[in-house]
Amino acid sequence: MQGQAQQQAYDRGITIFSPDGRLYQVEYAREAVKRGTPCIGVRTNDGVVLTVDKYIRSQLMERESIEKLHKVDDHIGIASAGHVADARQLIDFARQQAQVNRLRYGEPVGVETLTKQVTDHMQQYTQVGGARPFGAALLIGGIDDGEPRLYETDPSGTPNEWKANAIGADRSDIQDYLEENYTDDLDLDGGITLSLEALAQSKDEELDPEGFSVATIDVETERYERIETDELETYVQELDSFDEDEE
Amino acid sequence: MQGQAQQQAYDRGITIFSPDGRLYQVEYAREAVKRGTPCIGVRTNDGVVLTVDKYIRSQLMERESIEKLHKVDDHIGIASAGHVADARQLIDFARQQAQVNRLRYGEPVGVETLTKQVTDHMQQYTQVGGARPFGAALLIGGIDDGEPRLYETDPSGTPNEWKANAIGADRSDIQDYLEENYTDDLDLDGGITLSLEALAQSKDEELDPEGFSVATIDVETERYERIETDELETYVQELDSFDEDEE
Amino acid sequence: MQGQAQQQAYDRGITIFSPDGRLYQVEYAREAVKRGTPCIGVRTNDGVVLTVDKYIRSQLMERESIEKLHKVDDHIGIASAGHVADARQLIDFARQQAQVNRLRYGEPVGVETLTKQVTDHMQQYTQVGGARPFGAALLIGGIDDGEPRLYETDPSGTPNEWKANAIGADRSDIQDYLEENYTDDLDLDGGITLSLEALAQSKDEELDPEGFSVATIDVETERYERIETDELETYVQELDSFDEDEE
Amino acid sequence: MQGQAQQQAYDRGITIFSPDGRLYQVEYAREAVKRGTPCIGVRTNDGVVLTVDKYIRSQLMERESIEKLHKVDDHIGIASAGHVADARQLIDFARQQAQVNRLRYGEPVGVETLTKQVTDHMQQYTQVGGARPFGAALLIGGIDDGEPRLYETDPSGTPNEWKANAIGADRSDIQDYLEENYTDDLDLDGGITLSLEALAQSKDEELDPEGFSVATIDVETERYERIETDELETYVQELDSFDEDEE
Amino acid sequence: MQGQAQQQAYDRGITIFSPDGRLYQVEYAREAVKRGTPCIGVRTNDGVVLTVDKYIRSQLMERESIEKLHKVDDHIGIASAGHVADARQLIDFARQQAQVNRLRYGEPVGVETLTKQVTDHMQQYTQVGGARPFGAALLIGGIDDGEPRLYETDPSGTPNEWKANAIGADRSDIQDYLEENYTDDLDLDGGITLSLEALAQSKDEELDPEGFSVATIDVETERYERIETDELETYVQELDSFDEDEE
Amino acid sequence: MQGQAQQQAYDRGITIFSPDGRLYQVEYAREAVKRGTPCIGVRTNDGVVLTVDKYIRSQLMERESIEKLHKVDDHIGIASAGHVADARQLIDFARQQAQVNRLRYGEPVGVETLTKQVTDHMQQYTQVGGARPFGAALLIGGIDDGEPRLYETDPSGTPNEWKANAIGADRSDIQDYLEENYTDDLDLDGGITLSLEALAQSKDEELDPEGFSVATIDVETERYERIETDELETYVQELDSFDEDEE
Amino acid sequence: MQGQAQQQAYDRGITIFSPDGRLYQVEYAREAVKRGTPCIGVRTNDGVVLTVDKYIRSQLMERESIEKLHKVDDHIGIASAGHVADARQLIDFARQQAQVNRLRYGEPVGVETLTKQVTDHMQQYTQVGGARPFGAALLIGGIDDGEPRLYETDPSGTPNEWKANAIGADRSDIQDYLEENYTDDLDLDGGITLSLEALAQSKDEELDPEGFSVATIDVETERYERIETDELETYVQELDSFDEDEE
Repeated sequence: MQGQAQQQAYDRGITIFSPDGRLYQVEYAREAVKRGTPCIGVRTNDGVVLTVDKYIRSQLMERESIEKLHKVDDHIGIASAGHVADARQLIDFARQQAQVNRLRYGEPVGVETLTKQVTDHMQQYTQVGGARPFGAALLIGGIDDGEPRLYETDPSGTPNEWKANAIGADRSDIQDYLEENYTDDLDLDGGITLSLEALAQSKDEELDPEGFSVATIDVETERYERIETDELETYVQELDSFDEDEE
Repeated sequence: MQGQAQQQAYDRGITIFSPDGRLYQVEYAREAVKRGTPCIGVRTNDGVVLTVDKYIRSQLMERESIEKLHKVDDHIGIASAGHVADARQLIDFARQQAQVNRLRYGEPVGVETLTKQVTDHMQQYTQVGGARPFGAALLIGGIDDGEPRLYETDPSGTPNEWKANAIGADRSDIQDYLEENYTDDLDLDGGITLSLEALAQSKDEELDPEGFSVATIDVETERYERIETDELETYVQELDSFDEDEE
Repeated sequence: MQGQAQQQAYDRGITIFSPDGRLYQVEYAREAVKRGTPCIGVRTNDGVVLTVDKYIRSQLMERESIEKLHKVDDHIGIASAGHVADARQLIDFARQQAQVNRLRYGEPVGVETLTKQVTDHMQQYTQVGGARPFGAALLIGGIDDGEPRLYETDPSGTPNEWKANAIGADRSDIQDYLEENYTDDLDLDGGITLSLEALAQSKDEELDPEGFSVATIDVETERYERIETDELETYVQELDSFDEDEE
Repeated sequence: MQGQAQQQAYDRGITIFSPDGRLYQVEYAREAVKRGTPCIGVRTNDGVVLTVDKYIRSQLMERESIEKLHKVDDHIGIASAGHVADARQLIDFARQQAQVNRLRYGEPVGVETLTKQVTDHMQQYTQVGGARPFGAALLIGGIDDGEPRLYETDPSGTPNEWKANAIGADRSDIQDYLEENYTDDLDLDGGITLSLEALAQSKDEELDPEGFSVATIDVETERYERIETDELETYVQELDSFDEDEE
Repeated sequence: MQGQAQQQAYDRGITIFSPDGRLYQVEYAREAVKRGTPCIGVRTNDGVVLTVDKYIRSQLMERESIEKLHKVDDHIGIASAGHVADARQLIDFARQQAQVNRLRYGEPVGVETLTKQVTDHMQQYTQVGGARPFGAALLIGGIDDGEPRLYETDPSGTPNEWKANAIGADRSDIQDYLEENYTDDLDLDGGITLSLEALAQSKDEELDPEGFSVATIDVETERYERIETDELETYVQELDSFDEDEE
Repeated sequence: MQGQAQQQAYDRGITIFSPDGRLYQVEYAREAVKRGTPCIGVRTNDGVVLTVDKYIRSQLMERESIEKLHKVDDHIGIASAGHVADARQLIDFARQQAQVNRLRYGEPVGVETLTKQVTDHMQQYTQVGGARPFGAALLIGGIDDGEPRLYETDPSGTPNEWKANAIGADRSDIQDYLEENYTDDLDLDGGITLSLEALAQSKDEELDPEGFSVATIDVETERYERIETDELETYVQELDSFDEDEE
Repeated sequence: MQGQAQQQAYDRGITIFSPDGRLYQVEYAREAVKRGTPCIGVRTNDGVVLTVDKYIRSQLMERESIEKLHKVDDHIGIASAGHVADARQLIDFARQQAQVNRLRYGEPVGVETLTKQVTDHMQQYTQVGGARPFGAALLIGGIDDGEPRLYETDPSGTPNEWKANAIGADRSDIQDYLEENYTDDLDLDGGITLSLEALAQSKDEELDPEGFSVATIDVETERYERIETDELETYVQELDSFDEDEE
């Protein structure tokens, strides 16, 4: 239980170091990320797969409006977890940077370059006073010179590159599954299956094809594509049959 | 009961994260929304219905001046709940954005676009110091390319799209009613009836036709229209007869 | 009794939300309004009546200098209650806005428009740091397109339209009287009488014609006019005779 | 007795409302005024009389340097009580405003206009953060269109017009005397006598003609004039003989 | 004894009023002045005498570098007590103002004018946030239109004119001596003697001619002149012989 | 254990002195450095060797993305320890300064010059309010006029030159090893071996050639070169055989 | 022992007066100076001697990089004690001022002038909010018009001139030695010997010629010169033989 007196203390101040060298505001922002629904990124030989859980509070809410999977440029997609309004600011920032790059240099921005522009932006909010860190983490997937790339950013503004990664709620469960089951010879299909298995694993209930979204960025086309719900249904059925086989 | 010492603490500070990743100022602002009279939005096949309760403290107050239902552009209306003065700032901001869009692009602003401009504005007040979040939530209804749209914004600056939604006091009661009774084949008439039923349900007393306002944005005309009081009276009578039938 | 330690706490900070969604600084500013002498506004078919109590600390003080009734434009008057120095800033702001409107559009400002400009101004002082809310409420009366209008603004920056309203000390007593005795067929004379009755009711002593001021804005002339003291004397005498009759 | 811990609290903060709607910093500034030596203003039919006590800590201090009586324009004088350095800022501000008026409009500033410019300036220091209120009150006397005017300003920035008024130490004693003895048929001579009587009343010792200063602004000449010490001596002697007569 | 917890409190805040109308930061700054070595100013018919104690911590420190006696313009000198680094800022400010006056008006600045420019500057540091008051007091001596003038400024920014005055450590002892022994017929010689007697009185040990500095501003020459050490020795010897005579 | 109440205190404030003359924020930032994986710099006669540990949380993370070894200019490399996002800002700053130098003076920046530009930048964040110190330390290696140079910077902004040095976790163990085993006749090969021995010493497990990175800046070529993983494998094998020999 | 709670308090605030007129932040900064290794300045007839202790944490650190002795202009050197990064800012500031003087006036800056520019800069950091004082003291030595000058500055921004002075750790021991043994007939050689004796006195161990640095500014050449290590060795040997003779 969180007492009244303790809560009040967090309505003040700026981000500074604790005696053991930690930045509590950044760590608390990481907690905000853990409160978000999970996202999974998987890098395969044929491209990157981004998967997001679309938990909705109500049947009347439009799932599409829960934007956690965002096309940022033709060849780059971002999945976000955490404080939704904060994540939207970062996505907008990323889109602007991508557009600026096209205007300035006449070519698409690199995935790594874009990731670093976003993390530089995030770091400023952890060091300079008068603002709080962003309460969101991102998985940035795309194609750089024909190579699939998958980056993760956290509220501190640190960029990390991954083969496969999860952010948001149930992160450690999903990440464990990915570590055990990831192989270097995955194709996009395999990446989607792995993502859904990992997601299913972390839930008590069966996967609902409308309960998550998947997007791929294919090495061939270098284009971000959203997987349709009926196609997802096929993947879920395969998963189920596979489970039954296993039993 | 709320002690003196605790109240004092809220006269200080800016919005930062608590150890469990929450933004208390934003959550307190949501409480301010709950203190406002309820608003209901219902999206039907023929358009969007916005309904607001007009509780007044005194018979001498002009109900019309309790602005909770606002025409923002020809094809967009907004219902607001919470801190009245804050809501007015957001409505003004939305109107300016709608006008700027017409001037700049020569066409009406999209409902989704406008919603995001408003939520971006709201998010800034939760991250940058020297101000507090807006203590108001909005239901933004309108027509985008012939399609009815209904969005909700909360003090964090998160936009969500809904088929039907309630904000303000008694939100959960009204929302429960909407979830149970909403059907996908509603027309505007049905939307108004559903809204009034939901509102009536949450109150101990009978609906007074002067005690609420209703506006529609019709897919055909793409125009925001206020329903006249005498027309509302008819709806209320139907509701009553229906209730009697049920008994 | 108000302890020393508690008072000190109010010398700090900016206006933010309490856990139950309230803005204490705004509520405290409303208390400042209650510390002011009462003002009454009554809208009649023939125009608006504004009445202010002119309590003076000393016989040597010039009653005229206790400005609580202000001509803001030819067709608009404002009565103010609360922190006098704050009210003066708002009156000055209103006068400037009225003048700007005449210069910019070549016509007098609407009563509703002016009210909203004033409340927008007041709202800013409740949301942005580095200042406190205004400790004053206003009754804004005037003629819009031949129609009498009466608005009230409070420290939160909320505008409300009324048929009859009171602000300042004894507000609830006076307001009760207005609610019971207001009728829709009042003329200006009736409005003045109602105001004085309501004021007399809330006081232990008889009304002193020099102890209050009355101004009217007539629908015909569309002009703000101060009622002379000797004319007020007549009204007071009628009141007294009426009281005697009643006994 | 004032404890250490309580004093520390006043080294922080800005001016905001207490729960009962008071502005403590403004009230504390009023205490600063009460710590100053008394000033008296008396408006007579022939002009205004300003009288200030010139208490000095040491025989070696030049009484003339204790500026509490200031010529601000040909036709306006100001007496000040409270924090001396603060009062000097206000006097300088008033002089500049008076000069600006002459430059801009080619005519002397009105007493009421100047008073309001000064109080607007003072009010800002009570509402906007990053500064404290002025710890001084003023008596502003002068001639407006042939009429004698006497205004008082307090740290809140409220202007009041008076027939006769006192500020500073012993205010209530002196004010009581003024209230009892002021008559509407006073000439300048009578005003000076009344002021000195009021001042003498509040002191245990006899008046020392070098212990106070008097200035008049005559309706005829419309000029601020300082009364010479030997002339003051005559007034004091008359006072004494009058006292003796009374005994 | 001064506890740890209390000291910490002074590392925060800005200068505001206490409930009894005092400005503690200004009063604490006055304590800083009392921690400085004493300065004495004496106005005589022939000019002004400024005397400063030059206590040094070590025989290896150059007494000349302990600047407490400053030539500010040909005809103006300033003696300073309190926080040395603060005093230097004020002296620099005074020198600049004196130079600006010569450039702008082609004539030397008046002593009174300069004093007021310095005190205006000091007052700002007591009212506007983000800085602390100056921890220094000044004795400003000079010639205005052939008349000797002696002003004192304290950390509040109040200017006072004196015949003779002391600031810094042992102020009250020295001031008492000055009050008892000052006469109106002093010449510069007498002024120096009086200053040295007053200084000697407040010390347990004999005066060391190298332990203090004296400067005069003569009415005739209108020039600031430093008295040489050997000349001071003569004065000290006279003092001693006088003391012996007295015994 | 670190209590809740203590953590809260670090969400406030700016960097100021403690009573014993320490800057706690700077010391806490040094703790942040100790939380980072270790880096080793060794200056040899033939050039500088920079070695960084590449501990990774997960097998799926791309080691290359854990940037702790950075080419800053042709002839300068930097190894960083501590808060990753902070270190990236400093690296970017260093790269910009190096580029600016080439543009402005047409020649490569000196290692010492660059180090001082970086430390000046870091110092500002420890003295001016509204920000926190950088939570990172750097080892800056390069060639100045044919001479190998190795500098260390810490969060206070102090630059130190070293023959061999370690920063980050296990600093004191590694540094001890360096002090005992460093000789002045090292060549680059010897420098790499010394670095790896020191690193191996501080770990419980054998060195994994993929678990660290090494870069050299050769006096001959004056170029920063990354050592390939297979080459590192050879070094590790030599280390192991050496260990076995020793047993 | 210094408790946790007390340390936290110093992460806040600006520099203001304590009730006894002290500036704690400045006093704490003086403590920071005492934590630095000692510096000694000695003014002789032939020039100024500056001596600094070069304690190093590790044999691998380059002593040269511990800059505590700085050439600021041809004829001026500065020795610094305290917070190293702060001292470097002051040295840079002094160098810029010296260069600006040469550019603007075509001649070398005076030692006294430069000292005052530096102390003015330091004082600002003690009076204006948003920063902390500099945690460093300086000994500024040089030649003014053929005269040797030696100044000390402390964190308050006070300049003092000395014949011989010490700053940093063991200050009082070293200063005592200087006071007892300084004579007015020293030449540069004698000044160096005196400095080394004083330094040796304060240490338990013998002087290591590599453990300190000495620079002189000769009256003849008016040039800052660093004494070579082998020459220092000679001085140390003389010191030792002298010590042995004494025993």
